Amino acid sequence: MHPADVDAFFAVRGALDPEAYLELDLTFECVGDPRAAAAHLASEQSTAQWKRVGIDEDFRPRYAAKVVALDCSPLPAGFSVPMAGLPAGPVHACRVTLAHPHGNFGPRLPNLLSAVLGEGMFYAPGIPIVRLEDIRFPASYLAGFEGPQFGIAGLRDRLHAFGRPIFFGVIKPNIGLPPEPFAELGYQGWIGGLDIAKDDEMLADAGYSPLAERARLLGALRRRAEQETGAPKIYLANITDEVDRLAHNHDLVVAAGANAVMVNAMPVGVSGVRALRRQARVPLVTHFPFIAPMSRVAGYGVHTRVFTKLQRLAGADVVIMPGFGPRMFTPEAEVLANVQACLEPMGPIAPCLPVPGGSDSAATIEGVHRRLGTVDFGFVPGRGVFGHPLGPTAGAMSLRQAWDAIAEGTPVADYAKRHAELDAALRAFG
Amino acid sequence: MHPADVDAFFAVRGALDPEAYLELDLTFECVGDPRAAAAHLASEQSTAQWKRVGIDEDFRPRYAAKVVALDCSPLPAGFSVPMAGLPAGPVHACRVTLAHPHGNFGPRLPNLLSAVLGEGMFYAPGIPIVRLEDIRFPASYLAGFEGPQFGIAGLRDRLHAFGRPIFFGVIKPNIGLPPEPFAELGYQGWIGGLDIAKDDEMLADAGYSPLAERARLLGALRRRAEQETGAPKIYLANITDEVDRLAHNHDLVVAAGANAVMVNAMPVGVSGVRALRRQARVPLVTHFPFIAPMSRVAGYGVHTRVFTKLQRLAGADVVIMPGFGPRMFTPEAEVLANVQACLEPMGPIAPCLPVPGGSDSAATIEGVHRRLGTVDFGFVPGRGVFGHPLGPTAGAMSLRQAWDAIAEGTPVADYAKRHAELDAALRAFG
Repeated sequence: MHPADVDAFFAVRGALDPEAYLELDLTFECVGDPRAAAAHLASEQSTAQWKRVGIDEDFRPRYAAKVVALDCSPLPAGFSVPMAGLPAGPVHACRVTLAHPHGNFGPRLPNLLSAVLGEGMFYAPGIPIVRLEDIRFPASYLAGFEGPQFGIAGLRDRLHAFGRPIFFGVIKPNIGLPPEPFAELGYQGWIGGLDIAKDDEMLADAGYSPLAERARLLGALRRRAEQETGAPKIYLANITDEVDRLAHNHDLVVAAGANAVMVNAMPVGVSGVRALRRQARVPLVTHFPFIAPMSRVAGYGVHTRVFTKLQRLAGADVVIMPGFGPRMFTPEAEVLANVQACLEPMGPIAPCLPVPGGSDSAATIEGVHRRLGTVDFGFVPGRGVFGHPLGPTAGAMSLRQAWDAIAEGTPVADYAKRHAELDAALRAFG
Repeated sequence: MHPADVDAFFAVRGALDPEAYLELDLTFECVGDPRAAAAHLASEQSTAQWKRVGIDEDFRPRYAAKVVALDCSPLPAGFSVPMAGLPAGPVHACRVTLAHPHGNFGPRLPNLLSAVLGEGMFYAPGIPIVRLEDIRFPASYLAGFEGPQFGIAGLRDRLHAFGRPIFFGVIKPNIGLPPEPFAELGYQGWIGGLDIAKDDEMLADAGYSPLAERARLLGALRRRAEQETGAPKIYLANITDEVDRLAHNHDLVVAAGANAVMVNAMPVGVSGVRALRRQARVPLVTHFPFIAPMSRVAGYGVHTRVFTKLQRLAGADVVIMPGFGPRMFTPEAEVLANVQACLEPMGPIAPCLPVPGGSDSAATIEGVHRRLGTVDFGFVPGRGVFGHPLGPTAGAMSLRQAWDAIAEGTPVADYAKRHAELDAALRAFG
């Protein structure tokens, strides 16, 4: 790229109309001049060829992505991520902020993904390693989206659950278990104090557990649990399926008695989530499979908070995400960034409930609550309820007992001395 | 995991019904006993909890994924990919083949992705680094899919193009260019010999280029080019949009004169591709943005051929993929594996046309053809046609001249001495 053309992809942030641009925070590693590399990155994701041959025109002023901040330093040890075909030469590591004109594609999630995580991002000359760390949307762009229909407030209203976390439980076992005993497990969890008994994200409309029958049985037992406990309950049905089946599945399970639906966001696509949001009459929950392959490598791919923001934008009322603990391979700061992406102000887009999950039980809730510093979260054990040695009712009771201890300021271990279910949970899972 | 439970996740391949299982080839790096790690991987993506508490039952024989091949060796230097929170301990690198029972989820792409690329794959204890290298489907699973509607044979019939590559051109510039001059460029390309003039994958239904107007103008000029050249031509419209707009966009552009449609496969989701396939009346082309973040790191994520197979399964007639050359950061063997994934036998699923692209021109076609060893491919320059110094008609002519040279066995450089357009292309791009 000619030096004058490099300059054309740089801009002073204050000179741009902030409502016309998304902001992208990226890191990258490159060979060659880092300033030219940043310009290439901006060019490739927007006006890669900015004029016709032989015509005096220039689409860059209005349509080019622009570098508004760039900070680079040499990387003496070379590229930091193993890849085939890394180019040779001195390597620089850079942080860059791009302003990307969203009028190029509009408030459409697949076109947004194509622009900011597509060929222009990952095939810029000299930049084999690049990571999208964050994305920020101006109000003018957010106005094109519906966002969550119920949000945290709507979910709390439905559950009559205020000033505390929402207690989910993933019914286990699930793969292979027929609907009748599966529903009975859900009932036992509700009776013990679960707000929401949910399908595992891998449980589909399968031969051994047809979705319609599962929803019918769980719907009936949900209503029974509501009568017996006097508290509203939710059966959260996993309706993940081909995108042209989601609306049908929603109607089917809601008619049968499910009162919230879950889809796996990236497997159906965030656009599939948005389409479902437009038709859903119950809270919409998204789950996280198929994000880790893009997000776990240090310095490459996409930070998970970008996908959390997209799920919120698409209209998820609840976002289930990798939580704390070594099993989830997710640094604490990353979990917190994702929780923040659910709760922070986002123009007209309502907050959604963050549910950081992974190997949880009554033994972990105190730590999760302390790290998050809020009651606006969902807590989602699987084995911690359904693998409790005294059964699912006791498993759910152990969660509520742990929370009662936290709420009254008693150490959970002390409270366990007077509560057998909590005591058993701490012994089994602590 | 107890040693007896580890054993329960191993099986002899010949003892399993091959029609009941998908096969997954994986590599992973782990701490702890590699055999137990492989069992965890199988368990987490299927029957993670295989019985109820207090009940004598076992879902593993029928529903568990099983290890059918495992080969591990110590990795003295430790984990090979930089990540936060890598567990401590001696590291092994393994190759494993899993047999995964597809009855767990059925012929549904989002559920397939959730099972084989979800939480069970990327959150197995002790296995932070894992890559899905390949996937194989039995006939019983393929029977649940439609596959390509036209395929290579149908596309050749429509274009009257036999025994040679299909010549695509990406109209450039596109971001910012209004429909009238954009359509004129496409016309110039067709006149010069392009079979297919196409929208860039980043060109959406945008204010500066409304999809309906673009399709109307290109449809009219396509018909004019067909009359003037006597050869069928295709305008390939990028209809990438929210998934619940794809059928509408298809109908809109086809009515206006487009005779093939393109979507960005991962941004709309492979399930969105499949839904569109069910409604499409013209060839369906998929493009590759949003795959690189999952596929480029050595040893982690997913090999691109898995996504090529899924696009074919979803019904893409043409798959545009990263091609040869340093700019695409794709090893030659990976390009060839993706081409093979389009062309190899796949039960009742028709072959689709592979289009390996990236910085192509008349100067690269000889090398692409030699490496592929077949004429069943699409060739897709952008700048190589629309940045040709003598204009798009000469750019397209230069491609056909280069192919004529190859077809008659003349070195392209020699042929260029008698063909000014080819000569100019070799000077500009060679």
